[in-house]
Amino acid sequence: MPEEILNDISHRRYNPLRGSWLLVSPHRTKRPWQGQQESPSKITLPEYDPSCYLCPGNKRAQGDVNPKYENTFVFVNDYSAVKESQAEYTQGGDPSDLSNLLLRAAPVTGKCYVLTFSSSHNLTLADLTPAQILPVINLWTQIYASHLSPSNPLSSIPLNLPAPTQTIEKPSAQYTWMQIFENKGAAMGCSNPHPHGQIWTTTGLPEEPAAELQQLIKYRREHEGGNLLEDYVKVEIEKKERIVFENAGFLVVCPWWAVWPFEVMVVSKKHKRALVDLSVEERSDFAEAVAEVTRRYDNLFETSFPYSSGIHQAPLEGTEEEINASHFHMHFYPPLLRSATVRKFLVGYELMAEPQRDITPEQAAKRLREDCGGELYRKHL
Amino acid sequence: MPEEILNDISHRRYNPLRGSWLLVSPHRTKRPWQGQQESPSKITLPEYDPSCYLCPGNKRAQGDVNPKYENTFVFVNDYSAVKESQAEYTQGGDPSDLSNLLLRAAPVTGKCYVLTFSSSHNLTLADLTPAQILPVINLWTQIYASHLSPSNPLSSIPLNLPAPTQTIEKPSAQYTWMQIFENKGAAMGCSNPHPHGQIWTTTGLPEEPAAELQQLIKYRREHEGGNLLEDYVKVEIEKKERIVFENAGFLVVCPWWAVWPFEVMVVSKKHKRALVDLSVEERSDFAEAVAEVTRRYDNLFETSFPYSSGIHQAPLEGTEEEINASHFHMHFYPPLLRSATVRKFLVGYELMAEPQRDITPEQAAKRLREDCGGELYRKHL
Ligand SMILES: O=P(O)(O)O[C@H]1O[C@H](CO)[C@@H](O)[C@H](O)[C@H]1O
Ligand SMILES: O=P(O)(O)O[C@H]1O[C@H](CO)[C@@H](O)[C@H](O)[C@H]1O
Repeated sequence: MPEEILNDISHRRYNPLRGSWLLVSPHRTKRPWQGQQESPSKITLPEYDPSCYLCPGNKRAQGDVNPKYENTFVFVNDYSAVKESQAEYTQGGDPSDLSNLLLRAAPVTGKCYVLTFSSSHNLTLADLTPAQILPVINLWTQIYASHLSPSNPLSSIPLNLPAPTQTIEKPSAQYTWMQIFENKGAAMGCSNPHPHGQIWTTTGLPEEPAAELQQLIKYRREHEGGNLLEDYVKVEIEKKERIVFENAGFLVVCPWWAVWPFEVMVVSKKHKRALVDLSVEERSDFAEAVAEVTRRYDNLFETSFPYSSGIHQAPLEGTEEEINASHFHMHFYPPLLRSATVRKFLVGYELMAEPQRDITPEQAAKRLREDCGGELYRKHL
Repeated sequence: MPEEILNDISHRRYNPLRGSWLLVSPHRTKRPWQGQQESPSKITLPEYDPSCYLCPGNKRAQGDVNPKYENTFVFVNDYSAVKESQAEYTQGGDPSDLSNLLLRAAPVTGKCYVLTFSSSHNLTLADLTPAQILPVINLWTQIYASHLSPSNPLSSIPLNLPAPTQTIEKPSAQYTWMQIFENKGAAMGCSNPHPHGQIWTTTGLPEEPAAELQQLIKYRREHEGGNLLEDYVKVEIEKKERIVFENAGFLVVCPWWAVWPFEVMVVSKKHKRALVDLSVEERSDFAEAVAEVTRRYDNLFETSFPYSSGIHQAPLEGTEEEINASHFHMHFYPPLLRSATVRKFLVGYELMAEPQRDITPEQAAKRLREDCGGELYRKHL
């Protein structure tokens, strides 16, 4: 391994997927920590909580009643950040006027969903088997497909999904981006432990996917149609040192450029543009990869491991080049650093100057790969 | 006010200083919060804590003993993220090899300082008068000046500083960037309540200042030498609605493009490139502006308000265009949203897609301007 020295010296690493740098200071974990302690979440929740707005049969904040669903259930967020209809707005005024140049705004519409992963209040993805995670992936696929623009080449792919448990209403307008994500744990702003994720769909391409798309397109142009993440997967499989888990369809890796201490990327080995590009087997492989990540996370510090995760894939509407340059992957950003109670804070230097991490991605991958496999720790308790 | 409607609809705002967009969803604060509660920091700390590694006369982790200093004291961080000397490293290998292209690293050296704001363990910047904050600003200026490259036109400016209380050792190499910052409060990763800030100085220009510099230079080229932030200050003074405080030298504003709920920018009204460009009066004006921000923050929710703050100014070394396009300003990023215990989490959507805020900067500015002036709330307790 030529990079042994990188365990000892401060260095910057380049993230070719975002086109940005971060600072790595591997010796920093030696400092004592007297700051904030996270409270590990209680693992003794009831299976059903009558006051939970996500449990089957319960009434939600705005009066709607959840059906007695079995695995998954999706509904429009009662406190949506973007809405399908709102008052019209176009920024007026003389564009050469400084105030119009420096105070720019544009309207956004869209649709926000909440989606449960299980009917049980006290489970998380880490508790579920791949077969139990599959309905979530199928539902994500169904929702993504139903929001695709008819002009998107992805819209004509046959899905081979099992019969859906819910019909998804067509959105009232064509949106550009669908962000599928989960905030897990109080440390990551989650306010309800019932296993669930969110989907925010908007006009306009948000900053992060736009930055990635730009890099992916640039790489394709410079490498005769080659795909950055496909090439990256090859390099990682050859190097081995950052791999956490792999199966036929997916690689789970602590990326070379990881910012969060135990950050992981789940990436399709072949060039898949979006959920709808996955075959039935690949959807199962993806479910297994998600199960491996979340169970290994919980095993690491024997706690319900907080994180934010999110899927990056092709936009719902875009140029052919944008659709075809996209490469399906899922990011996991977990804050814990040393134990169930000591997290990494991405604060002063990180916000003002540049992201900074304390352990190397190689050290993180080694622990997740070698020490965290096997049964979920809670099963033995 | 033509933008009244922006209080009601979801929209994106453009940040011309970073060249990026954010999502504003003003109606989102209506949702109930059942998530994490921050623990407000104890305000009954002792004036001297024998176990604090920053109090005068105390021994630090690596054995050094602090002098019995009066106001400020600066020393090299015992757990520096970057160091002046480390093993040499240059990435080798064939650059056309994919692994060298996708796994890029570069060494970083530099110097990290810790700097106390007061000898009293139980004070914060909010407790200090402008005259008591001035020594901090003078020390920042002294440290910045002593790290400037001799080829930097800023290095020959006479400083008119009072006699320094400490001599600052010359760094062993010429660094490019100096990041002055503070993490205040446990919610922002601070592990010691003794009032202090940090300075990290590095080879290479970090991501955030690099992005700002690029935007500032672009604006100058497109506007015949005009300065983006000077023009922005004029617009805000005319509009009034985002101003928190102003004096002759500085404007305190909730920027149009603020991400954090009560984010504030302290910006020099005239084009000042760095701390060394400030006159004696302007340093006092800056001290007053910092006192106003921190006191108003504490008054907002009657708590010791957590934040990360940082100064952006000219690089220590750079092209003439880079030095002259720089505009001195200080960012404050505070997480609290609704009360002393409920913060904003910038998590799933924000990390995966784009920053998102719930109240408008105009609403935030109005509260900080109209409801938070006057004495520090703790004085009446
Ligand atoms: O240097 P400190 O105060 O120990 O550490 C704090 O500030 C650093 C710089 O923003 C962060 O990297 C750390 O995560 C945070 O805990
Ligand atoms: O929508 P929720 O779960 O109420 O809210 C959570 O996720 C959102 C999207 O990442 C964030 O904007 C909120 O700050 C966070 O508390």
